[in-house]
Amino acid sequence: MESLRVALGERSYPIQIGGGIIGLPELYAPHLAGGGVAIVTNEVVARLYLSNVRTALEKAGARVAQIVVEDGEQAKSWQTLDRVCDALLEARCGRDSLIVALGGGVVGDLAGFAAAVYQRGVPYLQVPTTLLAQVDSSVGGKTAINHARGKNMIGAFHQPRAVISDVATLDTLPDRELRAGLAEVIKHAFALDAQFVDWLERHIEKLLARERDALVHAVRRCCELKARIVAADEREAGERALLNFGHTFGHAIEGATGYGSWLHGEAISAGMVMAAELSFLAGSIRKEDVARVRALLARAGLPVKGPALSPDRLLELAAVDKKAAKGRTRFVLLTAIGRAVLSADIDSRLVREAIVAAAQ
Amino acid sequence: MESLRVALGERSYPIQIGGGIIGLPELYAPHLAGGGVAIVTNEVVARLYLSNVRTALEKAGARVAQIVVEDGEQAKSWQTLDRVCDALLEARCGRDSLIVALGGGVVGDLAGFAAAVYQRGVPYLQVPTTLLAQVDSSVGGKTAINHARGKNMIGAFHQPRAVISDVATLDTLPDRELRAGLAEVIKHAFALDAQFVDWLERHIEKLLARERDALVHAVRRCCELKARIVAADEREAGERALLNFGHTFGHAIEGATGYGSWLHGEAISAGMVMAAELSFLAGSIRKEDVARVRALLARAGLPVKGPALSPDRLLELAAVDKKAAKGRTRFVLLTAIGRAVLSADIDSRLVREAIVAAAQ
Repeated sequence: MESLRVALGERSYPIQIGGGIIGLPELYAPHLAGGGVAIVTNEVVARLYLSNVRTALEKAGARVAQIVVEDGEQAKSWQTLDRVCDALLEARCGRDSLIVALGGGVVGDLAGFAAAVYQRGVPYLQVPTTLLAQVDSSVGGKTAINHARGKNMIGAFHQPRAVISDVATLDTLPDRELRAGLAEVIKHAFALDAQFVDWLERHIEKLLARERDALVHAVRRCCELKARIVAADEREAGERALLNFGHTFGHAIEGATGYGSWLHGEAISAGMVMAAELSFLAGSIRKEDVARVRALLARAGLPVKGPALSPDRLLELAAVDKKAAKGRTRFVLLTAIGRAVLSADIDSRLVREAIVAAAQ
Repeated sequence: MESLRVALGERSYPIQIGGGIIGLPELYAPHLAGGGVAIVTNEVVARLYLSNVRTALEKAGARVAQIVVEDGEQAKSWQTLDRVCDALLEARCGRDSLIVALGGGVVGDLAGFAAAVYQRGVPYLQVPTTLLAQVDSSVGGKTAINHARGKNMIGAFHQPRAVISDVATLDTLPDRELRAGLAEVIKHAFALDAQFVDWLERHIEKLLARERDALVHAVRRCCELKARIVAADEREAGERALLNFGHTFGHAIEGATGYGSWLHGEAISAGMVMAAELSFLAGSIRKEDVARVRALLARAGLPVKGPALSPDRLLELAAVDKKAAKGRTRFVLLTAIGRAVLSADIDSRLVREAIVAAAQ
């Protein structure tokens, strides 16, 4: 098992990565405060891993309640959040309880946000069971639900007490979701680490074949990159926004198509191509760099073109993205492979051109 | 104008107290970040003070949107929170926007919670227009909405950037609400400051007559007491819970009667009598001390007996109060006039006796 740390002063926490670790009681024991545990998961993950985790927690001495929500992005709603809070109250969870978010990004975001607001905040663990969650959403304390007008519009920064990433759980992940997770892996690389891009270009097939060592390496590298950025900029005042490479467009795609028909990773895959094209049009990278982004995503079996939508509709949706500052939509652009920057001075005509170019 | 400070490191902020200060642009100007302002208020307060505050903000250079919610405790709901978030998105408020909570405790709790979760947190100002909000709820960053199973069950700690308390706004406060605010004033005194109890016993009629100097003194003293405690224990790990004197019972009364039929201050008034009786039964204060609590509340025109409910029902509701730790209901007891302590080791038989004694 490998372990690294997100350095945030008194809110620091470990990320533990390995194969077959989800059922180890000793990973949970340090986080029990005596007030009971509520596992929040979804229907699909519950069938696969709930009893494992439940048994581990019980062996560690916890009284365990379980809250099973529907599968899919629609669980990130006021209604489901209210149901989770209701179940927590029903289980008599107090401020010394622990929430365990067992599942992918949706469960992590929802359960993490419930932990942020239930009784003004209770501790929680992230136990991610998708690649997307292991490499990205479980780390850094961003939690949220969606609003009809935009994704992740309601949320909180609330750091977990630990992240327990078991790559063995990826064996049961549908191919489409594995690929969607690779989109975030590829994002980390292009935004932050040129060497990791090289490594991915050599190992992408091993990752698609779910080779354990390759998965552990990719999860670990993404977590290292993200932990460093989160430690420097917990609340996304600056540098952390670089992790949103592809996300302004990606969120617009998700919003336009109704959350769920495109997986998040698929939307940001197409979004990264748009952002790369925009970087090229803004004069900050070469056409070959755009081709490299597109090629690696294509090899991972990810969409490189957005949905059939007018560029104007995507532009409009991008403008309500959270990253809009002082009325201007901000974009994360590349200035080189492995180096992203934040830019607010992009002409909307260029953005429209980039959307068109990405659709070619 | 008097000014004091809540010392919370980088989250420190001023409390400004005076008569006729609500319309001063210079109090708002330092908090504008360029991203627009949304005033959240209710129907009643909007008629009285919205244009004042709006004009001040516009003079300070802000683009101002307004969100008017229904009057009363029922506004602390998921539905109203969703409507506020919807209006913020409609007004294109980004992370650099400022929310202004203009109104009493309900508006402050709701708008503060909206500020805590909208786009994972935006800054806000508290502009309290009730005595309760000026002496208590606007200070310290507690925000929340209610849940069918309990008051303030969903919320966040989110400190405002400033509190602007204009005691002139109390001129329009209904008598019943003025008295409800005095319940919190009296609470601060009995829990924390014996000298302030003496002062209140000499000045309670002046406060009921809304004499400006007496009001400024009372608001200032309560804010000083609360600011000191919040600075020492922002997230209510310990000492801050002392401010909940009367609240375990009070919340149970509010829950039992449906939020709103008893004002919060009325419920905690009766709750303080129960807590004082419990302190006496637990052997920590004398019967004369209980009489002093009861007498001052009665002089303020506040209820000293709870609603016609079985003690068992109140006990049950008290047990789901947030302050339950490790399955035990915690109570704030007095050990002297002006000195409260937290106790978790109270036999439920004693609690029942205290409820009965308070009803005599």
